[in-house]
Amino acid sequence: MSDYQIMTLLSDFGLQDVYVGTLKGAIARVNPRISTIDLNHDIPPQNLLAARFCLLSAYPYFPKRTVHVAVVDPGVGSQRRAIAIEFPEGHLVGPDNGIFSGILDLTGAIAAVELTNPNYWLTPTPSNTFHGRDIFAPVGAYLASGTPLTELGESIDPASLVHLSLPKLQETPSEILGCIQYIDRFGNAITNIPSARVAEKSWHAIAGTHHLAPQTTYSNVRPGDAMALIGSHGWIEIAVNCGSACKQLHLSWQAPITIAWTD
Amino acid sequence: MSDYQIMTLLSDFGLQDVYVGTLKGAIARVNPRISTIDLNHDIPPQNLLAARFCLLSAYPYFPKRTVHVAVVDPGVGSQRRAIAIEFPEGHLVGPDNGIFSGILDLTGAIAAVELTNPNYWLTPTPSNTFHGRDIFAPVGAYLASGTPLTELGESIDPASLVHLSLPKLQETPSEILGCIQYIDRFGNAITNIPSARVAEKSWHAIAGTHHLAPQTTYSNVRPGDAMALIGSHGWIEIAVNCGSACKQLHLSWQAPITIAWTD
Amino acid sequence: MSDYQIMTLLSDFGLQDVYVGTLKGAIARVNPRISTIDLNHDIPPQNLLAARFCLLSAYPYFPKRTVHVAVVDPGVGSQRRAIAIEFPEGHLVGPDNGIFSGILDLTGAIAAVELTNPNYWLTPTPSNTFHGRDIFAPVGAYLASGTPLTELGESIDPASLVHLSLPKLQETPSEILGCIQYIDRFGNAITNIPSARVAEKSWHAIAGTHHLAPQTTYSNVRPGDAMALIGSHGWIEIAVNCGSACKQLHLSWQAPITIAWTD
Repeated sequence: MSDYQIMTLLSDFGLQDVYVGTLKGAIARVNPRISTIDLNHDIPPQNLLAARFCLLSAYPYFPKRTVHVAVVDPGVGSQRRAIAIEFPEGHLVGPDNGIFSGILDLTGAIAAVELTNPNYWLTPTPSNTFHGRDIFAPVGAYLASGTPLTELGESIDPASLVHLSLPKLQETPSEILGCIQYIDRFGNAITNIPSARVAEKSWHAIAGTHHLAPQTTYSNVRPGDAMALIGSHGWIEIAVNCGSACKQLHLSWQAPITIAWTD
Repeated sequence: MSDYQIMTLLSDFGLQDVYVGTLKGAIARVNPRISTIDLNHDIPPQNLLAARFCLLSAYPYFPKRTVHVAVVDPGVGSQRRAIAIEFPEGHLVGPDNGIFSGILDLTGAIAAVELTNPNYWLTPTPSNTFHGRDIFAPVGAYLASGTPLTELGESIDPASLVHLSLPKLQETPSEILGCIQYIDRFGNAITNIPSARVAEKSWHAIAGTHHLAPQTTYSNVRPGDAMALIGSHGWIEIAVNCGSACKQLHLSWQAPITIAWTD
Repeated sequence: MSDYQIMTLLSDFGLQDVYVGTLKGAIARVNPRISTIDLNHDIPPQNLLAARFCLLSAYPYFPKRTVHVAVVDPGVGSQRRAIAIEFPEGHLVGPDNGIFSGILDLTGAIAAVELTNPNYWLTPTPSNTFHGRDIFAPVGAYLASGTPLTELGESIDPASLVHLSLPKLQETPSEILGCIQYIDRFGNAITNIPSARVAEKSWHAIAGTHHLAPQTTYSNVRPGDAMALIGSHGWIEIAVNCGSACKQLHLSWQAPITIAWTD
């Protein structure tokens, strides 16, 4: 793994403009040897929960010491803090609006700083609307290149970071009530119910009026049929073979999903 | 060219989620020095013929020893085999469902294995639904890094690979009957009739009720006018200058196209 | 920065086909060590002004000696020249149709050549429809690898390059009349009025019948409210907090925008 630096980028910028390309230019100006990987630039505009989920889903698959820069930032230019966080698997850089809380709930933070040192910005007078380019991307590139976290600004208490969470799971003896935390482009609905909760149990899922038997893979049912399954992210997922569960079952972000134990 | 490894990725995952980013993370964990190039992640979901065409169209333009990983995999988690193939220009990694047959029809396979050795997977217990991340991407990264093909699993007879083909061209003294094998985002319809077939001949194309004269480039006709031409992929193509042939001429995937010799 | 070469790619190819992947293959065949960054492949098809704006907006954020390859090329295969330009910040490669004029208006050109030397093409017999793959990408890769500009073809007078410009700003004592030069995917409308023109002045913007007060950032107004602001590109921009100014105010490409001085 040695001296090779990996950064990831996540944003709601889309790929139809030059915003993402410009972020990569700003990174290459700091260190052209950094390898920058796009996590996802099609986060629904300003959807903090989607950003939280995508970061949480992707980070375990990257090398240690990867720097993840995330720019879903409806409060850009306001008083929200710009932050960098050290966590056991690497670093996180972006606005302090809760998008990193999914990761931090799992791993904890080792240290955090507010990005107050303009020596590591693109310019000492950043724009009010594009901190991704002017602050987050260059700061991430310096971190990936070995700059110590504490150089980047004033230390802050990780407990002070904005926390963003989904409603807690509600459990009764007969069921677990959760919700949909993400809908992917196939229309698969990913719940916030960890698949570990159903291990070695007999269960089915309830979405609205639909009762869905668990399957091990999409092709176990006929094209067009709905199912519940252990998704590849480690959560219970609602899917339709060769179709969109979201459309077919009228599912929406944060809609309730129940896992019921089968006698 | 030396020690620099190139991998390509092709899938139907789209870029709206973190699936593609996660594949690249899995590759970087094996070897962060690999340079990963996206061929296309907008294959229409589960469209094996589109995947076959895109791989066939792109592979000649990559350096020797490139590893192409393709994940259009409606049978993931079923009994379909996971495979890696050595061919004269590099390696192919993905499901055994015919998506590589366009390339192999042209070049032949040198050797093939079923991916049965979990030492080269992300985890010995891969998910049932995301073999791209858990098997194909890491296996591709090991191949690109020099792992011998035979390490990855049991040898299989290349003749046993699933074969996916378009209908054969039908020829009469007066015409060649083929079909549309791909429609691109401009609405250009790419046929399965090789341009070599019309070299030094006098011809026109027939699409439905439309008779289309051959042109050397789009701008030879007025904006909005349809034409046939030798496409950049080496196939006869139906196009409209500054417009969509697909919409304007009501063309669809696999629709018949005739090349008629002109007296 | 040393021996690390950065190239950028901009096109109207979209990411739904293998065109962009194939460009990167052609670059990797020349030099697999080049790091290729996508600026934007969703330029509206054949929209030269959008390409001009995107290049102009992005180039200042890249390292010196970056090679920018741009393929928005409605005249491909016709008599339009294929060119490479040396400018103070690096090189520009693409068709001679004015897409580089935004940059050149600001920086000037040091030298230019017509790409007439087939030794630096993918093939001495390029296709008529895909000069991006057959000429521009490999030429860019050779430039990034240190090939002198003058090797690539015959020198041409930079003054002879096709020039593409927006209408000039019209000024009166009470106002500046400009236009919209770009609409981004958020629906923000970026004018051609440099923000320096309003520095330390009291002003508002007029778009159609809407009078818009200047703000320093999106979140200064309520969600759904429109505003004018100093955009991150350095131009006056019309935006709606958490919404699309383009849709809400019925703005279109090149529509007039007035900046009026406030008493």
